[in-house]
Amino acid sequence: MMLVNGQPQDSISALDRGLAYGDGLFETIRLVGAHAPLWGRHVQRLLAGCKRLRIPAPDIQQLWQEALQVSKGLPDAVLRITVTRGAGERGYAPPADSAATRIVAAFPLPDTAVDIYREGIRVRLCATLLADQPALAGIKHLNRLEQVLARAEWNDPRIAEGLVCDQRGHVISATAANLFAVIDGTAVTPSVDRCGVAGVARATVLEAMPACQVRELPLAECLGASEIFLSSSVRGILPVQAVGDTVYAPGPVTRAMQALWRDLGFPMELA
Amino acid sequence: MMLVNGQPQDSISALDRGLAYGDGLFETIRLVGAHAPLWGRHVQRLLAGCKRLRIPAPDIQQLWQEALQVSKGLPDAVLRITVTRGAGERGYAPPADSAATRIVAAFPLPDTAVDIYREGIRVRLCATLLADQPALAGIKHLNRLEQVLARAEWNDPRIAEGLVCDQRGHVISATAANLFAVIDGTAVTPSVDRCGVAGVARATVLEAMPACQVRELPLAECLGASEIFLSSSVRGILPVQAVGDTVYAPGPVTRAMQALWRDLGFPMELA
Repeated sequence: MMLVNGQPQDSISALDRGLAYGDGLFETIRLVGAHAPLWGRHVQRLLAGCKRLRIPAPDIQQLWQEALQVSKGLPDAVLRITVTRGAGERGYAPPADSAATRIVAAFPLPDTAVDIYREGIRVRLCATLLADQPALAGIKHLNRLEQVLARAEWNDPRIAEGLVCDQRGHVISATAANLFAVIDGTAVTPSVDRCGVAGVARATVLEAMPACQVRELPLAECLGASEIFLSSSVRGILPVQAVGDTVYAPGPVTRAMQALWRDLGFPMELA
Repeated sequence: MMLVNGQPQDSISALDRGLAYGDGLFETIRLVGAHAPLWGRHVQRLLAGCKRLRIPAPDIQQLWQEALQVSKGLPDAVLRITVTRGAGERGYAPPADSAATRIVAAFPLPDTAVDIYREGIRVRLCATLLADQPALAGIKHLNRLEQVLARAEWNDPRIAEGLVCDQRGHVISATAANLFAVIDGTAVTPSVDRCGVAGVARATVLEAMPACQVRELPLAECLGASEIFLSSSVRGILPVQAVGDTVYAPGPVTRAMQALWRDLGFPMELA
């Protein structure tokens, strides 16, 4: 089910700036029944994005009511909230009086094989490189062609994700998840101040591991890690079993973060 | 008036990937009555974009019929054609069986003061810098947040455009037009193989001036030009009267390109 500005409908104006220019933001949120364990962080990022793009912020209480409305009857749902600058005249200049468009939609949680949480996923290295754009880094805006191109590089269903690097050869993330690597006993996650998305699951992991280093992560160093895992607000903590031909075993840091995820209220499959 | 996949309607599916990820392309085309002098070049760029993004190409004859249909009764129209990868499931992976969405809309040509063609426009330098992304450079895709941010930097109506540079300090273009500078008697336009859009008007100017250099253009060198003009398929050839405090007079190269524009069939105001 879907609500557009609070009304049950499944279409938006063809003049919406979200379509014309990708002028907006989104959040993808895992619901567990009528509960969204990471709701506060999603809201925080959405509001930060609105502030950065100077899009009027939505009413958060209203968003939550709409989230409950669209997900009714779905015991495990993925919620997508999209906020755009709204309809506008032709031209890049943001209208002085723009009224944001708010789309709240719920989808059934995709099936995920239980054993990926236990054994890990296979990952490839993408050829698509992310551009440095500090003005847009971190927020979850609608300009996602880089991710579409990276994800279009393969369609082997045995490969669950792709690692994407920046143009200096530093790992930034997976196409739709953040990345953590354990290197010489220390957890490291790439900084996302020039490209990439500051994931809500990433923020949760970082809070739980204050000693985790947030820094540049050269690809070779990443591949030499003792553990690699991905974090996603929808898919949770995903051990990486292999990056191309390099194999990894899920280790104690990965397992600890999976335990944290269960404690947060996600019915994560037993690791 | 507007057609979506050939049907008169003004809305699209809220699940369209054009909205979700900016996963699509557009063209903005000036019509003169029932004639589009640069149609062939617009089509060429649109098809190149479809190929680059692997979006099924639209039927060009059909597009033209739809263009005539939506612009009927508008003696001077701006046509916007948008082609997206179509509706899709959640997730970046392009659906195997995607049916592109095609939106054809006509708008009245915006009023333009006649004297800007004679005296030129005032331009500012934008603080927003364009990211290097060779995979997306040149084509007119829907990921336009950089242009939105750059255009949002000012709202003084006396400033018609903003120059945008890349992160190395080279001028790339204006927010919605390409740029030409005459330096030591030679015309120069920035290359657009790492960022920027390969404008249809730019291609037309380049064909008319085979000696024009296409290369990196450092900002200081650009500001030292004897003439600067912008090219836009909607607005034509716009002399630049000032970039910030640096003033220019429209020179012979600018006037020659304005004459070319009139010869192409655009009822450009007398320069």
